Amino acid sequence: MRVRKRNGAEEMLAAHPEIVIAEPTAHKGRWHEVFGNNQPIQIEIGMGKGRFISGMAKQNPTINYIGIDMQVSVVSHALDKALAAEVDNLKLLHVDGSALTEYFAESEVDQIYLNFSDPWPKKRHIKRRLTSPDFLAVDESILKPKGEIHFKTDNQGLFEYSLASFSQYGMTLKQVWLDLHHSDFSGNVMTEYEEKFSGKGQPIYRVEAQFADKTKKVS
Amino acid sequence: MRVRKRNGAEEMLAAHPEIVIAEPTAHKGRWHEVFGNNQPIQIEIGMGKGRFISGMAKQNPTINYIGIDMQVSVVSHALDKALAAEVDNLKLLHVDGSALTEYFAESEVDQIYLNFSDPWPKKRHIKRRLTSPDFLAVDESILKPKGEIHFKTDNQGLFEYSLASFSQYGMTLKQVWLDLHHSDFSGNVMTEYEEKFSGKGQPIYRVEAQFADKTKKVS
Ligand SMILES: C[S@@+](CC[C@H](N)C(=O)[O-])C[C@H]1O[C@@H](n2cnc3c(N)ncnc32)[C@H](O)[C@@H]1O
Ligand SMILES: C[S@@+](CC[C@H](N)C(=O)[O-])C[C@H]1O[C@@H](n2cnc3c(N)ncnc32)[C@H](O)[C@@H]1O
Repeated sequence: MRVRKRNGAEEMLAAHPEIVIAEPTAHKGRWHEVFGNNQPIQIEIGMGKGRFISGMAKQNPTINYIGIDMQVSVVSHALDKALAAEVDNLKLLHVDGSALTEYFAESEVDQIYLNFSDPWPKKRHIKRRLTSPDFLAVDESILKPKGEIHFKTDNQGLFEYSLASFSQYGMTLKQVWLDLHHSDFSGNVMTEYEEKFSGKGQPIYRVEAQFADKTKKVS
Repeated sequence: MRVRKRNGAEEMLAAHPEIVIAEPTAHKGRWHEVFGNNQPIQIEIGMGKGRFISGMAKQNPTINYIGIDMQVSVVSHALDKALAAEVDNLKLLHVDGSALTEYFAESEVDQIYLNFSDPWPKKRHIKRRLTSPDFLAVDESILKPKGEIHFKTDNQGLFEYSLASFSQYGMTLKQVWLDLHHSDFSGNVMTEYEEKFSGKGQPIYRVEAQFADKTKKVS
């Protein structure tokens, strides 16, 4: 996603340390202290401008949310939305999703959302896709056993790739939607990209994929 | 699929015992004798009027094909096509796909095709879907270890169901196509239904799903 550079974005993040956590490594294994409760923690990797994660936090006050993006301008927009949402179950991180084991302990995360992740259509860029095996290994490590990734996209090629990638990693597809907006799925919270692309009549794909129980082994 | 009843269909099948195998139980575990060679055996369950299985047999002379359908009129049309194809690597069975363990020995089949299977959209009919767990158990039993099902359909609901069903059965999705006719898949042989529905502009879905190695166990 290309976002216009926002002047003063760094300073905006620094001005709200109660929402944008500046030193996430310090909280590894102790995020429940940051939230001040033991609610499950769900994260979105590549949250963009934060409409989804703010909406989820408002919709589900008994779950804690952490929105993650590596672009500072994008996180600053997500901060605007987080402030407007006036919730205390939402934090933001300005970090790279490939390094999440530095910020989260094993099994610390309850669920992961990926929404409209960058498609990286070229074969030589497969490793950059957030649903490629190296990212899945990071996700599996920080997720509880049998943790889930909930993934939405409008991108046909990325969705085809991701279904096979999840499956080949050993994950189970719990449910698949090939046209989310014309399905009986309820409680959908739209992302910025989702609004844009579904407005053009493109189908939105969705999948809930579950990791195997990592405490068990195949002989 | 509703097919007009064809007068004399039974007699047509009986007139060509070299193609329509009348007593398939007699050949269980010995289909290579029926074909007179040891080529791999691929089957289509619910072949309909047989365009696909005849086309495959013509395209791939080093593979043996068995087309299966439980409607006699349909098999009689498939017989017309098999005769026209003038190949010796194609046999037809007028039997029910749920009983295939009566006709094939364990691991006797190399690959299974399902094309445009009846969608059975109602929840209470899930067990009739050819991609539901009971059918998959039959398929797994007659397929070699790590055998594959190649499935095509235009039906969104059936495809969504089937991806999850394969995955939850423990199968791996090797590749998924969400719009087969606008992909780089080559060598596609169209079925009767495929021609009809793709002509209306509907996308054709396809998946190659692989069973786990049944000789291994999860501890
Ligand atoms: C196409 S945008 C989608 C944004 C939002 N999820 C939506 O649906 O509107 C993808 C976002 O993922 C972020 N992103 C890509 N790779 C990332 C990574 N490795 N770690 C963190 N964020 C990443 C990008 O900075 C961008 O903001
Ligand atoms: C919708 S038609 C599709 C025919 C063909 N594959 C095509 O794509 O044109 C489905 C076919 O599956 C057959 N069928 C359904 N259930 C079956 C079963 N349990 N065993 C064998 N054939 C079955 C039906 O008789 C019908 O001919």
